[in-house]
Amino acid sequence: MKQLRHILGIDDDEFIRGKVPMTKQEIRILTLTKAKIKPDDIVFDIGAGTGSLSIEAALLAEYGHVYAIEKNPEGIELIQQNVRKFLVDNIDVITGEAPAAMQNLPMCDAVLIGGSGKRLDTILNRVDTLLKPQGRIVLNCITIQTLSECLTYMKQHKEYTYEAMQVQINRLHAVGSYDMAQALNPIYIVTCTKQVI
Amino acid sequence: MKQLRHILGIDDDEFIRGKVPMTKQEIRILTLTKAKIKPDDIVFDIGAGTGSLSIEAALLAEYGHVYAIEKNPEGIELIQQNVRKFLVDNIDVITGEAPAAMQNLPMCDAVLIGGSGKRLDTILNRVDTLLKPQGRIVLNCITIQTLSECLTYMKQHKEYTYEAMQVQINRLHAVGSYDMAQALNPIYIVTCTKQVI
Amino acid sequence: MKQLRHILGIDDDEFIRGKVPMTKQEIRILTLTKAKIKPDDIVFDIGAGTGSLSIEAALLAEYGHVYAIEKNPEGIELIQQNVRKFLVDNIDVITGEAPAAMQNLPMCDAVLIGGSGKRLDTILNRVDTLLKPQGRIVLNCITIQTLSECLTYMKQHKEYTYEAMQVQINRLHAVGSYDMAQALNPIYIVTCTKQVI
Amino acid sequence: MKQLRHILGIDDDEFIRGKVPMTKQEIRILTLTKAKIKPDDIVFDIGAGTGSLSIEAALLAEYGHVYAIEKNPEGIELIQQNVRKFLVDNIDVITGEAPAAMQNLPMCDAVLIGGSGKRLDTILNRVDTLLKPQGRIVLNCITIQTLSECLTYMKQHKEYTYEAMQVQINRLHAVGSYDMAQALNPIYIVTCTKQVI
Repeated sequence: MKQLRHILGIDDDEFIRGKVPMTKQEIRILTLTKAKIKPDDIVFDIGAGTGSLSIEAALLAEYGHVYAIEKNPEGIELIQQNVRKFLVDNIDVITGEAPAAMQNLPMCDAVLIGGSGKRLDTILNRVDTLLKPQGRIVLNCITIQTLSECLTYMKQHKEYTYEAMQVQINRLHAVGSYDMAQALNPIYIVTCTKQVI
Repeated sequence: MKQLRHILGIDDDEFIRGKVPMTKQEIRILTLTKAKIKPDDIVFDIGAGTGSLSIEAALLAEYGHVYAIEKNPEGIELIQQNVRKFLVDNIDVITGEAPAAMQNLPMCDAVLIGGSGKRLDTILNRVDTLLKPQGRIVLNCITIQTLSECLTYMKQHKEYTYEAMQVQINRLHAVGSYDMAQALNPIYIVTCTKQVI
Repeated sequence: MKQLRHILGIDDDEFIRGKVPMTKQEIRILTLTKAKIKPDDIVFDIGAGTGSLSIEAALLAEYGHVYAIEKNPEGIELIQQNVRKFLVDNIDVITGEAPAAMQNLPMCDAVLIGGSGKRLDTILNRVDTLLKPQGRIVLNCITIQTLSECLTYMKQHKEYTYEAMQVQINRLHAVGSYDMAQALNPIYIVTCTKQVI
Repeated sequence: MKQLRHILGIDDDEFIRGKVPMTKQEIRILTLTKAKIKPDDIVFDIGAGTGSLSIEAALLAEYGHVYAIEKNPEGIELIQQNVRKFLVDNIDVITGEAPAAMQNLPMCDAVLIGGSGKRLDTILNRVDTLLKPQGRIVLNCITIQTLSECLTYMKQHKEYTYEAMQVQINRLHAVGSYDMAQALNPIYIVTCTKQVI
């Protein structure tokens, strides 16, 4: 009975991950929350990696659907393994690169962009044609350049509003009876909302 | 129809808040997620402030119940206003200070501690008597001393495991065509889980 | 007897500052250290603000000279007041905007850029004509765009190597017997070194 | 001619370091600056590690003296190698643990504490007997417990004032034409000043 599990917050080590880099739990949670995913939403996950974001998005969009786009064969395999492990039946895995791989996708409510491979502008242009009014795009940027390109794009497209933040997390690790901080790399999260015109 | 709203992530400015300090959205989200609140959970919110955590906890525990404990009359009034605004009917507001104010509370699944007024040890001792096995305590610590006391307590009580992290968020603000970072004060989040013995 | 004072690290509140924003002590120290200022160096301080960086640069370059460029009349007045307060006689204050205000400057060893007013490219081009081989440019960037422009410039000018870092400082403030963190806004420091060709 | 080198800011990779953890350049600079070391100061470096702080302290205290205390034989060897490499002749290396190893030390102006091995209180008590009025103690704390003990000590000894801050540095690394942030672990720096009574 799905209703009686806690929502969001699957632990990182519950995912099958291989050596593919994975969005950390805290960033995943903030990303999905900023995307304001509703139960009947259509969601794209571009650069899906291990599929951890896609899996949690699919649990939130329980009557909706998630399209996970990933070019790396190792990633594709991991996503499919995670889909089976978490028993989600509303994810389509699409092999390829955005925007080319987005050809047959339906209109959507939310788009998660974790990887853009230096084609952010063309991806955003394509996403824009498929995003419904009031739809959200949430980008995780680990480089200054992707962040900068995203901010530039949004400033040039006045039909979007955006908010951006940097998140830095330091985990405390017990060393004997003391606790030391271990830094995770910071990440920028940009949340873009398409206005109703 | 509650199912078709997005879960978690109410914007800060949707809450009625007066001048009472309020946990920021991102910290609220991480706190509630770490608490792994299930739909039928009993939740305590100690030092509830404006009630923002209580409201979101009550939406997650839709078949459960939230007890919001707050000593400050201005806070009490704000919680009640927010309860009415967000139409939640599963919150009890308790006026007073923990642990004294916890006298008639039932066994619980999750405890959120935002304020402990230098009585953290006695609060944790009282919470421990009411927390079910596998129950979670999530503390938001804004002082080094509260963090340190919490870590000491958990090291001395081996029936608990804990993880702790510091979260720092910098918001980007547009200044003309440029974006400047504005730092929010960092916070430590400690998540403690009671083991089944 | 100048030798028997400690070097670097003038406290923020020793500077006369008015309402002009001032680089915080820790950032000033890191900026000046990255600039590797030697006693006989010629230093430019572009966007000198209150002159706090210029003053400390002038103390380090005790047999050299500092040119402080500032367009804001309130800033000019503050720099001159601080020059008198700290008894430095090797600072020239230049009223105007870079690069126009740099017309009669000599060749230099180090350039500090605190403000660039959206003309970073033209400023860097002008700086480049005056910077000696092995000279250093140190930029304090508070916007993503200035950082991004600086990184782009340096990638396109292979005669420079650069290192960049973000610095975030949280001060602890005593609140009764507890200590709370107060975040300062983060800043990016980019250090560029001109290679000998 | 010592006067014509830049002061502070030796690059990390100029030190001989083996596998002993070394204070990073930026933290070293801030630590030494907060210690306000003057040319004729007597300085203790407790838990000297590779000696990187001692070396830079000795260059600042060019007419003074530095006592580097380290218990680890590998550290001792590294300090001596670095002393030879940087041609400093005003460092005494003392093998042993503070406070026991501090028996024959003279009165001092500044004390750097990088490692305290859970004996912080007894070390501070011993340091206090040797620290001149207006003397400075600067601690680098990588654990919450050392920070907490230091804050508690200083609150109980009203002859000291203190300021504390957390420093977090993210280095940008070029990955192709993009720049990614890599986080260094944060550190707390506590600066304590002995009042003239």
